[in-house]
Amino acid sequence: MKYPKIHLAQTVIALCKTKGIEHIVISPGSRNAPLTIGFTEDPFFSCYSIVDERCAAFFALGIAQQTKKPAAVVCTSGSALLNYYPAVSEAFYSDIPLIVLSADRPKHRIDIGDGQTIRQDDVFNRHIIQAKNLEQDINHATLEVLSKEKHQLPKFIDAKRIDELQAQIQERNEHAINTVLNSAIAQSGPVHLNIPFEEPLYETLDAPSVFPKNVSLSASAPKFQSNMLDPFIKKWNAAKRKMILVGVLGPNTIEQKFIERLAEDDSVIVLTESTSNLHHREFFPTIDKIIAPMEKLKAPETAFEQLRPEILLTFGGMVVSKKIKAFLRKFQPKHHWHIDEKKAYDTFFCLEKHFLTSPNHFFGAFLDRTSAIESDYKSFWQQVKSRRNKCHDEYLKNIPFSDLVVFKELLSSIPDDMTLQLSNSSTIRYVQLFDQNPTIAHFCNRGTSGIDGSTSTAIGSALTLKSPTLLVTGDLSFFYDSNALWNGYIRNDFRIILINNQGGGIFRILPGDKDSDNFDSYFETVHTLNAENLAKMYNFEYQDVKSASGLSESLRTFFESSQRPKLLEVFTPRTINDSTLIGYFEHLIENEQV
Amino acid sequence: MKYPKIHLAQTVIALCKTKGIEHIVISPGSRNAPLTIGFTEDPFFSCYSIVDERCAAFFALGIAQQTKKPAAVVCTSGSALLNYYPAVSEAFYSDIPLIVLSADRPKHRIDIGDGQTIRQDDVFNRHIIQAKNLEQDINHATLEVLSKEKHQLPKFIDAKRIDELQAQIQERNEHAINTVLNSAIAQSGPVHLNIPFEEPLYETLDAPSVFPKNVSLSASAPKFQSNMLDPFIKKWNAAKRKMILVGVLGPNTIEQKFIERLAEDDSVIVLTESTSNLHHREFFPTIDKIIAPMEKLKAPETAFEQLRPEILLTFGGMVVSKKIKAFLRKFQPKHHWHIDEKKAYDTFFCLEKHFLTSPNHFFGAFLDRTSAIESDYKSFWQQVKSRRNKCHDEYLKNIPFSDLVVFKELLSSIPDDMTLQLSNSSTIRYVQLFDQNPTIAHFCNRGTSGIDGSTSTAIGSALTLKSPTLLVTGDLSFFYDSNALWNGYIRNDFRIILINNQGGGIFRILPGDKDSDNFDSYFETVHTLNAENLAKMYNFEYQDVKSASGLSESLRTFFESSQRPKLLEVFTPRTINDSTLIGYFEHLIENEQV
Repeated sequence: MKYPKIHLAQTVIALCKTKGIEHIVISPGSRNAPLTIGFTEDPFFSCYSIVDERCAAFFALGIAQQTKKPAAVVCTSGSALLNYYPAVSEAFYSDIPLIVLSADRPKHRIDIGDGQTIRQDDVFNRHIIQAKNLEQDINHATLEVLSKEKHQLPKFIDAKRIDELQAQIQERNEHAINTVLNSAIAQSGPVHLNIPFEEPLYETLDAPSVFPKNVSLSASAPKFQSNMLDPFIKKWNAAKRKMILVGVLGPNTIEQKFIERLAEDDSVIVLTESTSNLHHREFFPTIDKIIAPMEKLKAPETAFEQLRPEILLTFGGMVVSKKIKAFLRKFQPKHHWHIDEKKAYDTFFCLEKHFLTSPNHFFGAFLDRTSAIESDYKSFWQQVKSRRNKCHDEYLKNIPFSDLVVFKELLSSIPDDMTLQLSNSSTIRYVQLFDQNPTIAHFCNRGTSGIDGSTSTAIGSALTLKSPTLLVTGDLSFFYDSNALWNGYIRNDFRIILINNQGGGIFRILPGDKDSDNFDSYFETVHTLNAENLAKMYNFEYQDVKSASGLSESLRTFFESSQRPKLLEVFTPRTINDSTLIGYFEHLIENEQV
Repeated sequence: MKYPKIHLAQTVIALCKTKGIEHIVISPGSRNAPLTIGFTEDPFFSCYSIVDERCAAFFALGIAQQTKKPAAVVCTSGSALLNYYPAVSEAFYSDIPLIVLSADRPKHRIDIGDGQTIRQDDVFNRHIIQAKNLEQDINHATLEVLSKEKHQLPKFIDAKRIDELQAQIQERNEHAINTVLNSAIAQSGPVHLNIPFEEPLYETLDAPSVFPKNVSLSASAPKFQSNMLDPFIKKWNAAKRKMILVGVLGPNTIEQKFIERLAEDDSVIVLTESTSNLHHREFFPTIDKIIAPMEKLKAPETAFEQLRPEILLTFGGMVVSKKIKAFLRKFQPKHHWHIDEKKAYDTFFCLEKHFLTSPNHFFGAFLDRTSAIESDYKSFWQQVKSRRNKCHDEYLKNIPFSDLVVFKELLSSIPDDMTLQLSNSSTIRYVQLFDQNPTIAHFCNRGTSGIDGSTSTAIGSALTLKSPTLLVTGDLSFFYDSNALWNGYIRNDFRIILINNQGGGIFRILPGDKDSDNFDSYFETVHTLNAENLAKMYNFEYQDVKSASGLSESLRTFFESSQRPKLLEVFTPRTINDSTLIGYFEHLIENEQV
């Protein structure tokens, strides 16, 4: 096995290995050669070569999203690094450990007119858990360069002094790398190591020449003590209306006994989203179906007051539904408590308490000490839910082929145990309107809710899973991330369903003057693209459909195993999608008494 | 004509108009609706809709590169903005005025769990001339939101006090916008205005409701005085070896009389690159042809000493040739002076003087006061140049079809007066080996030398020119920026020649173990893609060739006018390109006496 001769490269690689960072996504370059050589020579690492750094970083994000362990990206110097930024910010807000390893020129070569050289240190500014600018190796050769170029050091410096200096640098680098990698793991977020290398870059050794010391994560004292719960338990037991709202959450996060306990409490309603991956027949999985039509009731304020909780308990990441956010900001609960090991957003401007622990740990300490209270909170809203579900079914039977119909068809066709990746933003919003198959895990980049990397994330995520993955995406998201398909690691059982409504259909739902050319060009961004040529280029099996019957027909065989990944493009009529959706929300309350 | 109701949006748009910022590249979104409506409604502005913000920013960069006036990009909130970063850093290092206008959520909505919301202010950190976070309008409606959500302000505040507060905000915003836009113009670089809007976003007025005051650029006192030149003139007149090295420079920058004067001086050699756009038969336009072979001479040190100048005078932007940089760092001149109105890099670690003025102004004050000195500096190197040119011609007659042959053929086929855009990095380096047609302007993104936006830049640049544009690009650059073609503004006379050597051919020239799978995957990044499907998808006429005769044949009609833009894909044999180039440099000195 070969090792890069540069100590700093060996050190970064060895510490990544010790800390179990296995997946390394490399983009081509020369400055990063010491890292590329080191990572690819060691069979411990699973390495991937992806040219477009924007895709590379989302691909790594997808891997880390599933493995819940850090994945690393490696790039050369210059603007390459900046292309990671969209994925870095997604990782920052989605709490995903993404390790950015950027090779750099020596410090004295920055801002002197060299090519592929920018100010790389701390370039991700505030969307990063921790960033360090490492120090270049010092040895006879690098000192000679420095002394010649910068006249900074004596031309001859004795070997012993060089070794001493290098030992100090090595110690500082080891400390910095340990700190940064540990913080990615402890805080589950993106970190950045900027790594300067002097030429020669391609020299190797047959055995390592440095043996960096691993500093393990020190366990910090738990900040959550169950005895602090007393006042909260008292409030909980007295409250007749308690709402639990669950954001983005990995599958199987919450223990079943806690789920059952919450489900059986008459004073508790649990609102989930498809990305909550949390299921119980007593829960409320389609929030917008409950809330969106309420605005149109004769006396909306009365209905909203009936829904307003005394206590709001939240956990998980971002919440998709804008409606629930608007409702809870206007009809604020008396108490809002959030459970999370890391952070608590004051999403509704009334956060009272952040329980700094995991939901399971919290419920373990909390639920046994609570007692039931008589309440019709849940039963009332269960009745509303039933009525809405009935209207939902009726409406969907009688509408023309459109986005809404496509989602109904495809969601009921996905085989059990598949993983579903969803793009922003129409796609994920449509999915929220349907009850979900609990065996199917749902994921979506909701950290920044960008349209920039959904396909790359899905391809990366799929790699690490036992069962196959389906990406459902809109046309703008899909074409935005078209380079995602320039990827040698796409599984043959990977599936894409592209719902092509010829533009940003979501803008037709929003306010604005829909009958102008400017609207078509600058908001909806109407286009005539289709994915057939991309599918050819990247060796996907391709089918397209334009009708409900065509869709059913295609879905019958779409998930069968194949020698190549498949892409199914569903064309929907862009000018009726919006009215169909608006009609949907109107129909949901047609028979309401309130 | 309609105006956005929000004062801040009106103010940004009105000041852009007053300052002559005409080209506005808009990416779709809802938060930026006030800007989109305002810009697209006013016929003063030329607006463009481009979905992928990475491409949008490079497209705007291309426009600003040619017009030498600021071009703006407009995006919605969230990670959209981060996709501008590669182009922002290119603009920063290439001194191109790029105005980033990012819509944002109100300040109190950041980091509370809202979608498409990140920390947008100052996100470009150190690669920006100036950035300001503007203040949201205050009026009864926005205050109501604030008081409800944040309980920050009294629920009722009298109308007069609101008007006073808003007048102060308006004044601060006008000041900030003036300052930032003026700095983009004065310092010719990227700037960023972050612009928070509260809903409603789509409301319009039939007449403007604010009339922002334009603050003109104040002329700063010139920092260059010709009487400071005396000591430099004295040194100049005494020096027998003076080298002028010209970096990236727009066409027709230097007055002809100065060019003639420099060309006739026996003690001056003027080294240019294709991107210098500066031509005279006495100049040295192919630097690497002179320097690269010298390393292989029997006594390279002697030759290098003969080339070492006493005085090195530089102007223009980045220098492409690595060889000249390495040479001048090792054989440093006694004096290095740089002429530039804005900045001077210490590229060779021996910068003595920065003349803070334009080259024309400098030469106007300087040259008339200099006198000739007897020297054989130029004549000696002219002889070397002739010998190298002879070897160059010989070698090119006798080699197999390869990248080098393709460049010879295509460069001699480009019609007069075309504009040539080149991608990084092999492409621009190959072009440096050939004498150029002086009627053809050469451009390349050398600020960061990235492969990330060459096609988008070329398409934007082409829009503003009278004559047609040719982009010559390598395969990695081309596929990296494939979304560039998702653009409704590509001229029918736009031409792309894609030299597809199935990977990053440049890595085969660099050191490293070329016979391993790891090399193929992680350095050269070998692929089997071609552009045929992309050409179909984006409606380009497409041809491909695989031989010298096929290439000549295609080039005969390639530049003829057409109803669609054209793409010519030239496949070259990846495994012989490197040996052909290495052989080239060896052949150049085969008959050297030194």
